[in-house]
Amino acid sequence: MADTIHVLGIAGSLRRGSVNKGLMRVATELAPEGMTIETHDLSDIPLYNGDVQAEGDPESVRQLKERIAAADALLVATPEYNYSIPGVLKNAIDWVSRPPETSPLIEKPIALMGAGGLYGTVRAQLHLRQVFVFTNSLVMPKPELMVQRSWEKFDKDGNLQDEEIRERVGVVLRGLADWTLRLRK
Amino acid sequence: MADTIHVLGIAGSLRRGSVNKGLMRVATELAPEGMTIETHDLSDIPLYNGDVQAEGDPESVRQLKERIAAADALLVATPEYNYSIPGVLKNAIDWVSRPPETSPLIEKPIALMGAGGLYGTVRAQLHLRQVFVFTNSLVMPKPELMVQRSWEKFDKDGNLQDEEIRERVGVVLRGLADWTLRLRK
Amino acid sequence: MADTIHVLGIAGSLRRGSVNKGLMRVATELAPEGMTIETHDLSDIPLYNGDVQAEGDPESVRQLKERIAAADALLVATPEYNYSIPGVLKNAIDWVSRPPETSPLIEKPIALMGAGGLYGTVRAQLHLRQVFVFTNSLVMPKPELMVQRSWEKFDKDGNLQDEEIRERVGVVLRGLADWTLRLRK
Amino acid sequence: MADTIHVLGIAGSLRRGSVNKGLMRVATELAPEGMTIETHDLSDIPLYNGDVQAEGDPESVRQLKERIAAADALLVATPEYNYSIPGVLKNAIDWVSRPPETSPLIEKPIALMGAGGLYGTVRAQLHLRQVFVFTNSLVMPKPELMVQRSWEKFDKDGNLQDEEIRERVGVVLRGLADWTLRLRK
Repeated sequence: MADTIHVLGIAGSLRRGSVNKGLMRVATELAPEGMTIETHDLSDIPLYNGDVQAEGDPESVRQLKERIAAADALLVATPEYNYSIPGVLKNAIDWVSRPPETSPLIEKPIALMGAGGLYGTVRAQLHLRQVFVFTNSLVMPKPELMVQRSWEKFDKDGNLQDEEIRERVGVVLRGLADWTLRLRK
Repeated sequence: MADTIHVLGIAGSLRRGSVNKGLMRVATELAPEGMTIETHDLSDIPLYNGDVQAEGDPESVRQLKERIAAADALLVATPEYNYSIPGVLKNAIDWVSRPPETSPLIEKPIALMGAGGLYGTVRAQLHLRQVFVFTNSLVMPKPELMVQRSWEKFDKDGNLQDEEIRERVGVVLRGLADWTLRLRK
Repeated sequence: MADTIHVLGIAGSLRRGSVNKGLMRVATELAPEGMTIETHDLSDIPLYNGDVQAEGDPESVRQLKERIAAADALLVATPEYNYSIPGVLKNAIDWVSRPPETSPLIEKPIALMGAGGLYGTVRAQLHLRQVFVFTNSLVMPKPELMVQRSWEKFDKDGNLQDEEIRERVGVVLRGLADWTLRLRK
Repeated sequence: MADTIHVLGIAGSLRRGSVNKGLMRVATELAPEGMTIETHDLSDIPLYNGDVQAEGDPESVRQLKERIAAADALLVATPEYNYSIPGVLKNAIDWVSRPPETSPLIEKPIALMGAGGLYGTVRAQLHLRQVFVFTNSLVMPKPELMVQRSWEKFDKDGNLQDEEIRERVGVVLRGLADWTLRLRK
């Protein structure tokens, strides 16, 4: 259907039991009618090197760019490392953002969420918002989802055990649907 | 000599002709009496993965941690990618910062510099300062060095051609020497 | 006409010869067809005090809130003080943002510009973007306008003398018009 | 005594029952041996205006500058408004930071703390750290104190009721004493 919103979900952690992968799994389960959510793993993206990119994107980068280009919106679930964006996630964005004139991030609607720590990834999310100003992406201002004290809300395998957070993931998804439709030209 | 300050220099770019590698080369040439500057390349640091770290740091990470631990101070020369820290540099910090209780970054004196673009890496440096609050590192507030319009100041191979910037690198190094000695307990 | 976009312009400086007031004057001259730009001065906004607000907004705050509520979009021209937002501007936002449930900043389209210094207010603008996440305002990601080395581009009275910057103000205004129309529900 | 550390405490809120004023009261009670803490209120600082400053600082600004100059260190207790520094506090810093060559903030040791909200003023404190890079002040990286959910920890008059937070204020003060002595030339 023409109005279906295809969302690509990216988690900022490579760890198997990552709570942010868990948050993304919940999102895929809760995708409202009219929205599909597929995910993409960052583990095969190499370290960014401008000399390599000058000769052509590596295959894993090419695939990631294609999937972002094909998606109507992005959903990012990120941990916070050292008061900022995980290097793994930032590195993937560095590849995808180049060259800036043709980056699939341009004008892409994006929603952020994150789980972890006492402050719920708030600093990582704010740095991400700044990054997405450069790429001219359209980050939804609200609703925000910053899950504090993740050890109380996820099990050892990163599965969400908290009903309130589950509901708030749904609110983010419905917000992203509205945001994406609203921005359609 | 007991008072020699051993500095480890890290450039945030992997590109051969990187202007930030060039800035670091100038620093190594200008190291004042009583200071040595050696550099470390980040190209063999893998993507951070908590599962891997739980089994023990990869050899390249172990070496980087050892060199930071052995240094009296760090000097970082970073480009700015997407209004923030390059993923490559952030990824290396993510490894080195864990576990936080024993990270060699704790109480390490650090000076920042960077070259690139119209705004001279100012946003990348400010995000780095925020990162180094988490790690409890001691980042020198001034002098700052943010080289704007790098294409006018470096040649194609990333060699600095600008005398004023050269002098300012020297000012940063003398500032770092003072800062490191001042913080010695 | 129903499609006219009414913009309220706010400069972040109180100084008579402010270059940011000058930038705003250029904007009012260049308002494209279908857009009106009126400005509001912050000099009579008192220091924010929650005890005072609990008893009712001061008259100057009430007027500012009304004008923002009546506008279709905001245009902010700000200097950078101490690597951040001028206190005068932040103080006005603090008043207007409360109570958060009824703030006229909610869902308000906003464009930013700024003039000053070597780095063109880039740090002030990024902090402002963060502030407007809290208020759930809709800040246009691009085009950005950060006027560097303002002393070369404005005269002593803050009048813009630079044709390229003048054109870029026009680009911002047309961008804001598009952004405002695009976000209309 | 020569070794006594004189600290000036500044709260970022003007509200009578402010929890940050309450946090500062606790600090004054807990000042360890060898440290005195006096406080300064910001309610009589006018809005910053460069034209006014060009004719000479207002009396209230002159007094604040003198007290900062006379202090060995600053202690700031700040709320977070709109994901950033309160305008009232930023406005006071704007006055005190000018002219930059003679600002009493240069090389001043500073400790930050703050109380409020779900995220404990973390975003306000990080913006403050950025501000104090411009002023070349020496902000202690750790320990940090960000009091979350202040409504559970203070009474209606802003008096701290939480023993753990009380102890952590003491830790900040001892940290500031060490930091100030360590930085003495």
